[in-house]
Formats: sequence, structure tokens, C-alpha cells
Amino acid sequence: MTERAIALEIQDRVATITLDRPARLNAFTPGMASELVAAFDATDVDDDVRVVIVTGRGRAFCAGADLSGGADTFDPANGPRSGQLIDGVPRDLGGVVALRIAASRKPVIAAINGPCVGVGATMTLPMDVRLAAESARFGFVFARRGLVPEAASSWFLPRVVGISQAMEWVATGRVFPADEALSGRLVSRVVPDADLLDTARGIAIEIAENTSAVSVAAARHMLWGMLGASSPWDAHRLDSGVIAALGGGGEAAEGVASFLEKRPPRFPGSAQDAIPGLVPEWPARPA
Amino acid sequence: MTERAIALEIQDRVATITLDRPARLNAFTPGMASELVAAFDATDVDDDVRVVIVTGRGRAFCAGADLSGGADTFDPANGPRSGQLIDGVPRDLGGVVALRIAASRKPVIAAINGPCVGVGATMTLPMDVRLAAESARFGFVFARRGLVPEAASSWFLPRVVGISQAMEWVATGRVFPADEALSGRLVSRVVPDADLLDTARGIAIEIAENTSAVSVAAARHMLWGMLGASSPWDAHRLDSGVIAALGGGGEAAEGVASFLEKRPPRFPGSAQDAIPGLVPEWPARPA
Amino acid sequence: MTERAIALEIQDRVATITLDRPARLNAFTPGMASELVAAFDATDVDDDVRVVIVTGRGRAFCAGADLSGGADTFDPANGPRSGQLIDGVPRDLGGVVALRIAASRKPVIAAINGPCVGVGATMTLPMDVRLAAESARFGFVFARRGLVPEAASSWFLPRVVGISQAMEWVATGRVFPADEALSGRLVSRVVPDADLLDTARGIAIEIAENTSAVSVAAARHMLWGMLGASSPWDAHRLDSGVIAALGGGGEAAEGVASFLEKRPPRFPGSAQDAIPGLVPEWPARPA
Repeated sequence: MTERAIALEIQDRVATITLDRPARLNAFTPGMASELVAAFDATDVDDDVRVVIVTGRGRAFCAGADLSGGADTFDPANGPRSGQLIDGVPRDLGGVVALRIAASRKPVIAAINGPCVGVGATMTLPMDVRLAAESARFGFVFARRGLVPEAASSWFLPRVVGISQAMEWVATGRVFPADEALSGRLVSRVVPDADLLDTARGIAIEIAENTSAVSVAAARHMLWGMLGASSPWDAHRLDSGVIAALGGGGEAAEGVASFLEKRPPRFPGSAQDAIPGLVPEWPARPA
Repeated sequence: MTERAIALEIQDRVATITLDRPARLNAFTPGMASELVAAFDATDVDDDVRVVIVTGRGRAFCAGADLSGGADTFDPANGPRSGQLIDGVPRDLGGVVALRIAASRKPVIAAINGPCVGVGATMTLPMDVRLAAESARFGFVFARRGLVPEAASSWFLPRVVGISQAMEWVATGRVFPADEALSGRLVSRVVPDADLLDTARGIAIEIAENTSAVSVAAARHMLWGMLGASSPWDAHRLDSGVIAALGGGGEAAEGVASFLEKRPPRFPGSAQDAIPGLVPEWPARPA
Repeated sequence: MTERAIALEIQDRVATITLDRPARLNAFTPGMASELVAAFDATDVDDDVRVVIVTGRGRAFCAGADLSGGADTFDPANGPRSGQLIDGVPRDLGGVVALRIAASRKPVIAAINGPCVGVGATMTLPMDVRLAAESARFGFVFARRGLVPEAASSWFLPRVVGISQAMEWVATGRVFPADEALSGRLVSRVVPDADLLDTARGIAIEIAENTSAVSVAAARHMLWGMLGASSPWDAHRLDSGVIAALGGGGEAAEGVASFLEKRPPRFPGSAQDAIPGLVPEWPARPA
């Protein structure tokens, strides 16, 4: 775990997390999981970060779990994979990462530059936007490895692409190209490989320059959180409270004033002002 | 609030609600909210209304909240916006309208004729069908105003367009054209501006001439309501009961007979027969 | 009920269920419902079956409920339609079938070869993949018959196609062609009529040859079941447990070994190993 598995760079209020084991096609390891959790812990509390981009070094995004342990790779007798238990069993490492990303206070953009398979694919599901390079390919290959979808993807995947598309990809376990990911709504755009990072940065900067960090953090947790609510009345209760709290403060005053004055906004607030406190947050770790 | 903010016309069993402040791009006000609630109260109990169309006068559908109050527009110290409280805070006015529309016993078609921004966009989400004119454009701009998505849209939007598309539009707050609304599944059709109302009326008349008011009212509340149910067994319990109640009555007898006789149906029932009683309804107002 | 209403054939680990009343356009009867339930009971426990295909004999898939009883077809006074009660009313027969299909341990592919209307359409919603022949057409016609969507479709349909598309098809009750089913995401592919069964068999064989029966059975119930869960933490708890159970066993060992050795897998397990026990299953019958 002493080998560094990811890189984290911050520029223009955008954090870029690069999966960084190119010689192994950025295969997922316990060390990578720990570093990803730490990176999102850091970006959450850094007011200089408005958006997080996740991409891969070299020709892959993430080829899935590192199988260098061979047929015993997934044997829990090889030791706890995450060092954390849930309901008495080791926490699935993909889920440790996916639920940390789900709890992010900053929006997350996946810039999928190449093969994106297994946990490489499922870890992107709690991200907010997925962009693919033309050479990307995808696979929810678990049933071909004698395993099941992990990283809480049984919950995320049908909500992202619909239950029928989810079942077809999961039951066949097949690897598919970027254009099938687009038509199946797993990604919102496919762009030439050379344009991928610029496209991701363009969306990130559009967010950073135009929006309130308080608003985006609150909205992110409102939308994801309300996927679990049984009635729109739950949303009405929540958003009535948030609007009452924000409506008389500096964020809304600056947002309306800058709009009326046709100038860029200079919002005073921080994502810390939104979460926790204003909006319930999804836990990043078990209660 | 003495200025009339909407118009309501009924013709051929179709009610058309027109947002009617064209000089202000039909900007949303407390008065407009009250009139919209009253209009849906009226269409619900009027058996001569089978379908409701909502559109805008002039070049806009609804440009969002009226910001003529300036930077203090959303300050609750300016007085309660709805005059109603929920959990001790003023009810968000967009939610007052959206939840009233959600509770409609008649299907609702949005004919979006131009800019449809902020609460103008979110109020359409509980409508059943959204059609756009080519010149329509859309924006969930809340994060650019230092606010959050309202009108219970944190619940509705991900269910209408999927969580990823919802997050991209909400996090960027960007204004986008009709074709992006179509590819993102916010609207089901884009038509030339001159054809918009005729297209909406065509769907409305297709419903009015061919279907049972009892069936449509019950089905509307069944489908929207079951979005909040955790198991299809809940639906099975409900539809078994409804079919047992309807199967021996006049609606089903006429429906089957007219089909077998290859003639237009003359259904005897009213939406009042369906809701409340046959099917649980979403509340139009707080309990 | 002595007339046989379906045919069941098993070949190459694929079961094909053929709705088999071609002279009646495979109209749905109580006898067909009973035979469908029995067929899925059989395929679930037959380890030689990895995938189930459902199609129709002749020019229709299923034209809906058999209306030869005339206007009284749906009158419960004609006797209980299913012989089973739920909450004191006769169970809707479409729901009896749909919920049995939902509980299937094997993935189910609908090969929709022609008209697919009413219960013919709703019974396909709990299937995992829907393919349409070019000559297929569809209709959720219940409101035209004075009835409501059945077969628990108020729960299934909005989850398969989204609430807005669901409401448009249900409120109009219109019959629509295969290309509208494709653009509305009711089916994942439209193919020439002559290619339909080969396409379905191709997907089935892709599953049978490459994946673990344990994995697919478990994954099927995980994805459908998690549609009813309010939080991804529920999925994390479940998949952590399943991966801990499978990770040290023969399925995962063979899955990883065959991948590393670049050879077809020979998985030792059975769907019976997955359900019940490993993963909670949806009940096939009322509790």
C-alpha cells in the first residue's frame, strides 16, 4: 500500500483525481480505495475545490479489481479487504468508495478515457456526470467472474440507466463500446479521445464560475437523497425549509443581484454551509 | 394580486390554462400560484373537463419567479409567500402549485411555447406530458441564483429524466434548447411553434374521445402513487381491488362492448367516481 | 381449461415458452395464467435452464384478455378469475403471472413477435429484456376498456420507461408501433420479424455460455429488489454479504481462473444456491 495509486491535482477550482497505476490498467486495489476515500475527504472540506473530475492515467480508466492474486482474489480468508465490517462481514471495497463518492459535497464528473470494467464501472455510478472517450469500453462483468454487482450498484445502476438496460448488461456481463453506453444512457456524451479532459473541464468550469457552492452542495444531496423518498411531500418539506433559510441570506441576494445586473456572481458561501446543517447528507461511512 | 395572472378556457372537454402575464414573460407570482391552485380545484370537479393543457401567453411559457422585488425577492422577511406553513416555515410556492398539479384527477399536458425557466420548468414536472415548441428553452437555474431546486423538483426531476441528467442540469444551472430537452427526455416531442397547441389538443382529444374518465383518473393516481411504493405487491393489492370494483360495473361493460362493436365508447362515469374512494389520492394540500 | 394454452421447450439450456392460442391471437385466459405460473415454477428448479424466452405462436404475441365472454368478461360475479384472494378480493390474474415472472431465478427475454396489448404488454414488464419484431405493436389500452392498468404495471411501467412515457401511453390507451416502443425504451431492439427468435436466442446463449447461474440469479434479485430500497446503504449491506459468501467459493475461483486462462468458464453452481439463502427473493405468491 506504499505505492501511490492515485494523483490529486487542483487547478482553477477543479480537483482532478487520476487513477494512476497505468502499467496495471489502473486496476483497483485496497490501497487505491483508501486513497480515493482520503481524496474525497479532502475535496469536501477544501473551499478552493468546486468540482471533482475522476479520470485514468494511460490507456485505461480502470480495468476492474486487480486480479494478480489469482483465483483467490476475492477470498475473504485472504484478510479483510477494507478493514471495516458491516453486519459482521467485511465491507465490499467498491462500496466503501462508491458510498464515499455518493456523499461528496462537490459534484463529480467521470472522464472515462478507456476500459471501464467491473468496479471501474460501478464506482462511476454515484458520480453526477459520465463522459466517455470514443475508445472507452464498459462492462458489468461480475456474473462472468462468479460474483455479483458490487459497490452498491444494484441500487445505483437501475436508477441511472433503468432496470431493463441494467439487467441486460448485468445478466450478459458483456463488454460494450462507448456508443452503446451512450444509447443506454450510461454516459451523457461520447467525444474524441483528445477532447475528453477539455470537455470535462468545460463542464466543471461552467459550474465553478456560475453557481453557488452552497446551492450545488445542497442540491446534490437533495436530488440523490430524494431518490429514496416515497412522496414528493418529503421534498416539499425539505425544499421549503432550505429556501426559507437561504432566501434571506447572502447567496440568494448575490444570485439575484448578479442576474439583474448581468454580471458574473461572486457568491460568499461555502459547501460547508450547506452540509451538514441545511440538508441531510448521505453518510460517507457506516453509522 | 388583483391583476389576473392566468386564463382558464374550456372547450371540447379540454381545459386550457394560459399563464397570462406576457409583458413579464409570465413570471411567477404569489397571485399566479393562487390562481393555478384554484384552476386545478375547478377542473378536478368539472365533469366537462377531461384533460388540462397548460401553456403561456406571448413569447414565453414562464420565465421563472418574478424578480421585480430585486435581491430581496426570496427573503422570507418580506412576508409569507404562500400564507401557509409546513414544519414551521412558509411553504415554497412552487411546491404549493406542483403538489396541486400532482394531485390532479385529470391528465395534464404542458405545451411549452417559449422560455421555461426556474419555477416555470419545475411546475411542469408533475404534469403527465410535456411538449416543446422549437423556440422553447429550459433552465433549472437555481444554483445560479443562490437557491436550490424547489417545487419538490428534487423528487420529481430525477424520476422524469433520470438522476444523471437531472444532476447535470441542476449543477450547471445552464439554459438549454428544446432539442436538448428532447434528448434528455424532459419533453416527449418538439414541434414547430405554430403546431404546438394543435399537437397538445390532439393528444387531449385522443384521451377525451376514447377513454373512461374513471379509468384515467384512477390510473393517473396509481402510476404516480406507485413511484413511492417499495414493492410491486403493493400495486398488485391495489389493482386487484380496483379491477374487482370496476370489472362488474358500467365502465368496463361499455369499454368492452364498444370495442367488440367497433364503435366509439360512451362511458357513463366521472373522475369523481375514482378519486377519492377507489384509489388513494395524493393530497393536494398538507394533511 | 383442458385446452393447452402454452408450449414449453428446452434446448441448449434455454427454455422457450410459447403463448399458444394462435387462432385467438394468444388471448390471455385463466388457463394460460395457470400454465405460465407452472412453467416458471418448472424453469426455476431446472438446472438445465439458464434463460427463459417468452414468445407467441402465429402472428400475435398476446392480444390481451380473451373477451369472448363479452361485456361481462371482467365481472367478478362470473367467478373468481384466479381462485386466489388478496385483501379479500380476487387476485388480478395478470398480477398472478407478472409477480411469478418477477420472482424468476432465471433471466427472462420477451421476443415480441406481433400485437402485444393489454395484459399481453403488462406481463412483459417484469421480464429483463424486451425485443420487438418490426411488425409488433403495443397498447396499454385499459382506459379504453373502462379498466385500469393491471399486472402490477402501475409499479413496473414507470420504472421501465419513466413516469412521463408511462402516463402518455396509459392516458391515451393508444396502440403504437415497434419504433415508438423503441424510442420510448419499452423495448431495447427492433429487428426484422425473421430475425426475432435468433436474436433472443443469441442473448440467451451469451448468458448461458459465459456466466455463473448463481451470479445471475443473485444479481437478478438484487437489482429488481433494490428498486424498492430507499438507500444505497441497503445495497452495500447486501452485496458485502453476498461477496463475502461467494468470494471464497468455487464460482468466483472458476470465474477468475477462466478469465486469467482465457478459456470458457465451467461454473459448478446452480441458481438454487443463490435463492433463497444468499439473496432475499421476491415472493412468487402471497405471503
